[in-house]
Parts: sequence; C-alpha cells; structure tokens
Amino acid sequence: MRIEPGKLLAGINSPDDLKKVDQTQLVQVCQDLRNYIIDHVSVYGGHFGASLGVVELTVALHYVFNTPEDQLVWDVGHQAYGHKILTGRKEEFHSNRLYGGLSGFPKRGESEYDAFGVGHSSTSISAALGMAVSNKYQNRERQHIAVIGDGAMTGGVAFEAMNHAGVSNSNLLIILNDNCMSIDPNVGALKDYLTDITTSHTYNKFRDEVWNILGKISKFGPNAQEIVSKVEGSIKSFLLKQSNLFESLNLRYFGPVDGHDVNHLVHVLDDLKDISGPKILHCITVKGKGYKAAEENQTKWHAPGKFDKVSGMIHKKAPVKPNPIKYQEVFGHTLVELARKDDKIIGVTPAMPSGSSMNIMMKELPDRAFDVGIAEQHAVTFSAGMATQGSHPFCNIYSTFMQRAYDQVIHDVCLQNLPVTFCMDRAGFAGADGPTHHGAYDIAFMRCVPNMVVSAPMNEEELRNLMFTASRFNGPFSIRYPRGQGVMTQWRTPLKELEIGKGRVLSDRGDLAFLTIGHIGNYVFEAAEALAKEGIDTGHYDLRFVKPLDKDLLHKVFKRHNYIITIEDGCVQGGFGSAILEFMADNHYHRKVVRLGIPDRVVEHGEQIELHRECGFDPEGIYRAALKMLHHEMV
Amino acid sequence: MRIEPGKLLAGINSPDDLKKVDQTQLVQVCQDLRNYIIDHVSVYGGHFGASLGVVELTVALHYVFNTPEDQLVWDVGHQAYGHKILTGRKEEFHSNRLYGGLSGFPKRGESEYDAFGVGHSSTSISAALGMAVSNKYQNRERQHIAVIGDGAMTGGVAFEAMNHAGVSNSNLLIILNDNCMSIDPNVGALKDYLTDITTSHTYNKFRDEVWNILGKISKFGPNAQEIVSKVEGSIKSFLLKQSNLFESLNLRYFGPVDGHDVNHLVHVLDDLKDISGPKILHCITVKGKGYKAAEENQTKWHAPGKFDKVSGMIHKKAPVKPNPIKYQEVFGHTLVELARKDDKIIGVTPAMPSGSSMNIMMKELPDRAFDVGIAEQHAVTFSAGMATQGSHPFCNIYSTFMQRAYDQVIHDVCLQNLPVTFCMDRAGFAGADGPTHHGAYDIAFMRCVPNMVVSAPMNEEELRNLMFTASRFNGPFSIRYPRGQGVMTQWRTPLKELEIGKGRVLSDRGDLAFLTIGHIGNYVFEAAEALAKEGIDTGHYDLRFVKPLDKDLLHKVFKRHNYIITIEDGCVQGGFGSAILEFMADNHYHRKVVRLGIPDRVVEHGEQIELHRECGFDPEGIYRAALKMLHHEMV
Repeated sequence: MRIEPGKLLAGINSPDDLKKVDQTQLVQVCQDLRNYIIDHVSVYGGHFGASLGVVELTVALHYVFNTPEDQLVWDVGHQAYGHKILTGRKEEFHSNRLYGGLSGFPKRGESEYDAFGVGHSSTSISAALGMAVSNKYQNRERQHIAVIGDGAMTGGVAFEAMNHAGVSNSNLLIILNDNCMSIDPNVGALKDYLTDITTSHTYNKFRDEVWNILGKISKFGPNAQEIVSKVEGSIKSFLLKQSNLFESLNLRYFGPVDGHDVNHLVHVLDDLKDISGPKILHCITVKGKGYKAAEENQTKWHAPGKFDKVSGMIHKKAPVKPNPIKYQEVFGHTLVELARKDDKIIGVTPAMPSGSSMNIMMKELPDRAFDVGIAEQHAVTFSAGMATQGSHPFCNIYSTFMQRAYDQVIHDVCLQNLPVTFCMDRAGFAGADGPTHHGAYDIAFMRCVPNMVVSAPMNEEELRNLMFTASRFNGPFSIRYPRGQGVMTQWRTPLKELEIGKGRVLSDRGDLAFLTIGHIGNYVFEAAEALAKEGIDTGHYDLRFVKPLDKDLLHKVFKRHNYIITIEDGCVQGGFGSAILEFMADNHYHRKVVRLGIPDRVVEHGEQIELHRECGFDPEGIYRAALKMLHHEMV
Repeated sequence: MRIEPGKLLAGINSPDDLKKVDQTQLVQVCQDLRNYIIDHVSVYGGHFGASLGVVELTVALHYVFNTPEDQLVWDVGHQAYGHKILTGRKEEFHSNRLYGGLSGFPKRGESEYDAFGVGHSSTSISAALGMAVSNKYQNRERQHIAVIGDGAMTGGVAFEAMNHAGVSNSNLLIILNDNCMSIDPNVGALKDYLTDITTSHTYNKFRDEVWNILGKISKFGPNAQEIVSKVEGSIKSFLLKQSNLFESLNLRYFGPVDGHDVNHLVHVLDDLKDISGPKILHCITVKGKGYKAAEENQTKWHAPGKFDKVSGMIHKKAPVKPNPIKYQEVFGHTLVELARKDDKIIGVTPAMPSGSSMNIMMKELPDRAFDVGIAEQHAVTFSAGMATQGSHPFCNIYSTFMQRAYDQVIHDVCLQNLPVTFCMDRAGFAGADGPTHHGAYDIAFMRCVPNMVVSAPMNEEELRNLMFTASRFNGPFSIRYPRGQGVMTQWRTPLKELEIGKGRVLSDRGDLAFLTIGHIGNYVFEAAEALAKEGIDTGHYDLRFVKPLDKDLLHKVFKRHNYIITIEDGCVQGGFGSAILEFMADNHYHRKVVRLGIPDRVVEHGEQIELHRECGFDPEGIYRAALKMLHHEMV
C-alpha cells in the first residue's frame, strides 16, 4: 500500500527543497509531515508520539540550519521520523524498522543527515560538543545542535556534558524538548524544576513576597510598591536569568517557547544561529501532538503498533492458539507475588515501568517500587544502598541499558557481595529496535565479575523459580530473559526454590548434545525433532546458570557425548559457550564444540526470528549446524 | 616504628569516646588527628591532602551523629583516614594500604562504621539515598550522610541521584566538601558556580543592578534606594535560596560554611539533624589543610609517598639500576610526539591529567588536550563526537574507570566504528588501591564488542608502536598497560607501524608454550630461565592483540606445542585465555591448556607483585604451573 504525501511534502525530498518553501507555508508542511507519519505508523507500526511532538521543531531546524553541513544530533532518536522523511528517505519510509529496511533511529551509515547514531538516551550533548570542539580546532564553521528530551536530560552523562559545555566556548545549541515524558511520565526534581520555569512559579512567588514586604513598610507610603512595579521588568529578566539552573552551569538559557509554533521557532532559531557559545533553548511540546488519542494517553501511544488512524483502535494480533504471555508480564506479576510474601523485596526501574512491567508493582505496592528516571547508574547504586540496610532490591534494567551501569554492578554490588537481583529484560536480540538495543553482551560482561550469579530461564516457570531463588539468595544475582512471549499458557506455576548452579537434563540421548541457556533453548525441540526424523538422536541440557556452572552435569555431558553444540542468544566471544570451553580446559576434556550465538559483528534490526536465522541459530540453523558437525566427522 | 597519638586522641578508640570529650576540646582533637595522619603518611605513604582537608568535618560528624547506627558514606573514600582512626582502627593504621593490612578506602568488611565500600567517585548520594529509602520503609530512624567532593559532584551518577533525592522525602544529608580539587584542579561549569555561590558574586551583581536602576529613577527621589536597602535582607535570603542550583533540584541548601571551624560545624550539623527531607550542606575546605606544602601544591600532595614531615621533602626511592620510566610517562610523551606530526590527534582525560600523564600534552598543546572532569561517560561520547568530524581522539581512562563508560564504548564508538583510541591505564592489578581499582575485567568486556581492537604492549617500545598503529587505524582501538615501570631504559625508540592482529615469537622451543598478553609477559623470562636450568625448554609468544588474534601464529603454536599456558594480568573468565580456547575450539585443536590470571574472586590490595604471587602468576607461580603441567603429564 503506497501512502501519498500531502501536496507540499510531495515536493520535498531534501532540506534544500524545504528551504525553497515560503515561510507562510510552513504550517502546511508541518501538517503534511504529521499526516505522513500518522499514515505510516498506523499501517506499519513504530514509535509514534515522540515524532509527532517534534514535527514543528524538525521542520524549523531543517529550514533554518544548513544540514548536513551543520550537525544535528537527535537524542535517543525515536523522534526522528520527520527528520528522516525530510532528508531523502520519504519513499523508503514504509520499510522503517523492517528487516533490511530503514533503521528506527538515526544512523550514520544510512544518511549523511544522521550526524550521530543514537538509540540510548542522553548522549547528544556530549556528541555535539565533541563535534563543536573538533570543528573549532579545524577552523570549520559549523553549527552543532543537540535535541534532547527532558527525560533524557536526567541521564548522568547529559549532566557531565553540560558541565563541560559550560566552560567550553563552543558553538553548541542544546534544544530541550520538554514534554514531561520519557516513555512513561518523566520523574524527578528536574522535571518539577522545568515546570517551575515554564509557569514562572518561583518568580511569581518572589515578586509576591517582595510586594508584601513593601506593602508592610508603611512609612515609605504607597509609592514603595509603585517603585518596584516600575523596575519590575528589569529585575525580572535579571532574576530569571540568574536563577536558572542552566545559566548556573554557564549555558545561556532561552525560552521557554511554544514548540508547536513553527514560525516562531524559525524566528528564534535564526536569532540563535548568530549567538556564539553554548546555549540552550527550552521548547515546550506535547508528545503525540496532533493525534488526539496519542496526546491523551502518551505512554500507550509511545509505540502503539499498527492502528486504525480514524478510530484510533490499536490492532491486536489475533492469537492463532492460546497465547503465552510475555516474560515481561510474568516478571511483573511474580515480583508482586514475591513482594507480598517477603517484606525485604523492593522494585527499582530506571524509567521503564511499563516496558518492564514494574508498573504492576508500582500500582499494587507503591511505597516499595521506584521509577528513578533515566538513570541506570543511580538505579544500581541506589539498590546497593538499600541492600546494605536489609532490603532485597529487584532492579530491572534492559540488558542493553545495563551496559550503562556496569561499573555500579561491579563496584557497588559485586565487590561488596550485596543481595541485589538484576532482572535483565530484552536480553538477546531486541528485534526491530536494532543494534543499539540488542542485549548481546551481558553474559560475557556479567560472568567475569566475582560473586555474580548469571542465569537465564528457558520458560515462564523457570523465570518464576529463578526470581524466587534469587530473592532468597544473599548476593548479586542476574536473570536474563528476552523481549516477548514465553512458551507456556499456564504460567502461574507454584514457586520452587532452585539449587543455584544446577541445570536440567531435557534429553541425554545420542552422540551430539545441545547445551543451551535461556529461552533460545526452545528452538532445540524443533531442531531435535527434525534430526530425529533423520535417525539422529540428540541430547539437550538446559544449563540454567552460566555461573556457577553445573559441574556435575557437565562431567556427565562430556563423558556421554562427543559432539557439543552450545547455543545462546548472546555474543559468542566470552559468552556461555566460552564458559563451557573453560570448563573443558580446566577438566581436560577434548571434544568437538561448535558455539552458536551472536557473531562478532554489528547485527542490524529485524524481527528476532529473522535475526536468529541470519546468525544461524534459529531451529533450522541449529539443525544444519548439527548435521554439518556430524557429517563433517562422518566423511 | 610506633607512632604515638596526641594525648586526647590517645583516649579515643571509638566515636563513643569522642562524644565524651568536652566540646571546648574539639579543636585539640582535630590537631591530634591531623598530626596522627601526618605522622603516619609521612612514614608509611598513602593519600594525604584529602584526609587533612576533612579533619574537622570528620570529628564533627562523629561527634554529632550516632555512628554506626547513623549511616555515613564517604564518596571516593581516600579522605577517610581520620574516620578510620576515630572508629577503632588507630592502632592498626600503620598497616594502611599494605598487603594484608587496612584498606585505603572505607570497606564494609573492615568495620561496621564503613557503611558503604567506595573507591570510585560519585556513588555516595545514590547509596545514602538507597539506605534512607530502605530505612524509611522499615520505619527505622537513622540519619544518612553522604560526604562528596565538588570534583565527584561532576560525575553523572551524582546528578542522577540528586534528581531522585529531590523528589524523595528521605532523611538524607549531602555534605558538599568543596575544595576546588579532584586529584588535579577541578574543572567545569559546576566548579565556577560553586565559587560564585561562595563569593555571592551573582547576588552582588544583582543588587548593584537594582541599585543602579533605582538610582536612575530620579522622580521617586532618593528614598527609592533607601526602600530597597531596608528590604534587602529578606530579598537576599529569598533570592539566594531560589537561585540556587541545588534548590532548583529541590534539595534544601545550607551554607557555605567554613569546613575548618569544628565548633561551628558541630552546631550546624546538630541543627540539620532535626530538619527532615533531602538537604545539602556546602562546606568550604582546603585540601591538605594544616600542612603547608600540601596546601600549596595540592596535586603533588594528593598521594605524595613517604616524606620528611619537618622539611616536607618527599623521599624518592634510590634507583638500584638505571630506572625504566613508567608506562604512564611513555604514554604522555609519545602522545605529544604523535600529535605534533598528526593534526587529527586530540587528547581526552576524565580528571586524570597527572595520573595518566595527559598533562604533558595539556601543557604542550593546550588547545588539543581536554580534561573533562570526573566524567568517563562524557569523555567517551565526546571523543566519539570528535571522531565524526575527522579528529582522532586518544581517550585515556584507567581500566577500572572504563567500566563506567562501557555503554558509551559500545553504543557511541564501536557500533559506529569510529576512530577513537582508548588507552587503558592501570590495567591489571592496581596495587595498593585494591579491588575497587584493579583493572581486572577490561579484556573480557572489551573483546566481546564488535569492531574493537584489543591490544596490550609488553614493553615501552611496544606501547609506542601500538599508539602509532592506533593513530593510523580508522576504528576503535584499545591499548591496556599497567601502572608503573616498564622494562627498558632506552624507551624512546623509533615509531613503527604494526600489523594489527600480529603477535611476536620470543621463543619457539620445547613442548610447552607460554602465550602472554601485555607487560606480564616479562615474568616469563625468569620462569623460562628457571625451567631451562632443569632442562626444560619452553616457547614464548607475545600475542600483542587479544583481538584480532594472530591466527597464523596460533596455528603454528598448536602444531608445535602440546602444552599451553596462557598468562594475563586480567580475569580468567572470558579473558585472553578464553579467546585462545575459542580459537582452539573453532579450529579443532585439542591441547592441554592452563590459564593463569586473576581468579574469580575479589583480590584485595597489596603491591602488584604480591598480588601476582597470591594468584600464582608471578615468575615463580608461572614456573610452578609449568612444572605441574608437565609432571602431571609425566607421572
């Protein structure tokens, strides 16, 4: 289905085309662009509210600045659909987030207009400052713009960058896209502060107080208030400037401005171009702007999936069979179940309450579940602090975002051997979000840290039992599981404490054994069936724990089987397979081993199964790997 | 040599003893404590200036608060000598930082007064907030105090924590120990801001401006200024409060106060105890306070080594033979040498100019070398931004601190395949700084990331050549090297470009081969000599690169040798040895392999050689491992 752009947008294939449009027509360009986004996302899916919220900003930026010569960095990047459409990718936009298609995020390899690849939040100020400093040294006159949300602004690296930007004399413009939202409503003191600026609350309070004092000093007579009234203008501008948090950090602050008034934005940006030094423009926007349902329920419409654009009904896939629920929901419900029985349990999420299903606990046990904002580092050390006082935090962080808290995991939790359970959601291939979001490295980077238990459930029951086991364990414990559905329709199984470091025998037949970790082990059933049809029996061991390894089980495996295939939805360098090789070396086993998993290259986006196939560990890939291993030997 | 404490300090073995001292005597207690620290550090070495700067604060905190029931968290922790001495560790203090002795940092296992283990900066607010939230939920009335320097305050996690603290109603007191220093002078906009508060600079400017305006409004007559003069007091207090950066984040701000007036501190802390909610006390201190030389040269006296306390002469070890210089200096000089020839090269350090020797470039080429503050995450993404504009940053971050920038390495550098060279100083055992500072994990966590080259030099010439090679490489490149001296006295060798992924054959004899990476390979010479004396010839291969591995060389190794010992100053799980095992598995080699390196447990502090010995990879350990491997086989 081809989606037609509006008349004005139809003629715009680059920012150069946009610049030829008369400024009086920009409102219509915005309308066309907004419609085009709505038309596409309703049919093809993807992120929604964020891009709608920056339509005017996107048009104004490309209208005023000389992209791609000027460097435009979108923080996080899921708001850059309009940017992609205006910068030569309109015709391909239907392939957005599909396997082999456009990336859902800005990506340097995709377009020269994508100045910096993004996906994780809070990087844009650092990146744009680096660009500005490099170009200054090279005497190259370029503008450098970072567009960052108020949610992303809470990430520590953004603050580090502002602290540096404030003392650099760099040509840097930070655009604070303030919509009070991360995926979920933004939290924290900064959010309150931005609201305060926007409403001039503090200033008004100040003025009232002075007013009051002056009113009381009767001996000066009524003209005391009159005097202050006369000078109010200059006092106000000075006060607002000096009392501004960003000005405190030596960034010139402008705003707040209405982020949906494209003509005003053009005017302001044009002025700012000529003001040197680091500066910040505070724009107030509405996430989902222009699509009523999205404005009203911003979390739901962050990435709604496909929908009927007229009725606003979100299409749900019709289940072909009873549908297993998602691991995320199993986590969310089980955590509440555990917490109700165990007072020590506390929930922590860095800005992912709905994505992780921590919102279930936040609703049921609000004083025991915390959304700390986009702040993975703080989430972990905050958890460590709680653990020292006898609490047992369950800190849920997506595998890919755990990379940002790695030092805190090592330094604050593991070296002190504190009872914090890390639930690493989105482990393995993330799917359509692509390489920035793949949870590829966690097995490798977690298993090298002392005291850390590294585990992964193969199904919902296992996830529940691992969580239960972790809650009773007095040290760091990590549980990784993928995005999406499990395999059981009856998932609410009785909780059972597992022995830490004990795996499961699913089959002990044949000369070849599959050693698997986590959900990906389910693929083996299909592969084994296909092999059985060719008369090849195989063993299957679900190790459950990468660390500690089940040594007893492995001794049995290596005594029984000559061919070993390890399978993990994680990087093959240093991962689960390597842990098996280490066991073999330490115990003098010499066997053929093939390690299947994520290869040592950047794997792009696509559905999980597509990526597993590409990397040779979908069921067919596993089947072929087994055949090849055995045939290779048989020849 | 026994060091006698002053008379008052002699009677203090715990905070309870301290509390029995009359408040009029606290100045003398501080003097005793300061002397005791000077006496010890001059004789035994250790951190110096930081602890001297917080003597009064330390005494006041333990005098006022009910430690260890109240939770006191020292950020970084190298300023906690006074705290250790007052909390029962006076008699053992001579063992500070020695193998088997006291840790140089607060450590939970060492004392119940050490509420949270530290070493890396900027964690204290998160930890104390976690404690406060946990205790609040448990209805436990405790005070929670984080003592954090203005340098540590620039680390992003501190900001993340403040953002959260500002909306929690927790019993949290942050003490900002403002001395304008990290190890080197602190940098960034926050530092300027704190100076501004301290001097009331902005307020004075504001008052002058209002004054001026009022003076000009002649029609109100001279009493306009008089009116404002009368109300100045209340305007001032309101203005200072509302224009305060910390108040913006909803933390009640108190101060600035003189951090060396112990009686005033006691008074203020006593008041603050009764004020609920999150709050910050701004203390102005002088690093090195009370020891003139240390006050005057704060960087040099951060950790001066042993010295004569009377003359202030720092003892240098007399070299027994011509002394190889440190890897750090080789890095510093070579970077300047490369940068002079290659305009693309830029230097970046997060607050370690003197420690890393980046200060050489900062002095020689000041517009091309940046200290970005304690901000590892920003340092990396800032570097990535520069790399997109054609610069080639050399980003020097200690191995242990690289953990804090791991996501930025993956997400901003490696996924985009940008030319950033990471020089990872202090790789391997850090020595006396202990487990928080050991660079144990970098090989494992770097080699699993796509596009990253992982290398380590065995000597100074190799470091220079690797740096030169990296500067000509168009992608991410990491070079790890240890703290301390290399092995060459003539280190300024001609620069030579290396083939990436090519190792070196140092010996190809014998049935057993040592495969080594980095400086630790030098230990093999001694071990091999000892083995040769017993008639055992050995091979020695310096791989130089963990990634990409030298496959040609490894094929030769595995064809020639039956016994392999891998040696690395890094964790054995997932490290260099595992990379060798992966190569073997992929290429169907079956050989006995022993992997020597840092074991999977927390290794405490001590001199590097002591720790290598403990872990069995000092020269004798290597020798024994070889003998065991061969004898085991021979029996």
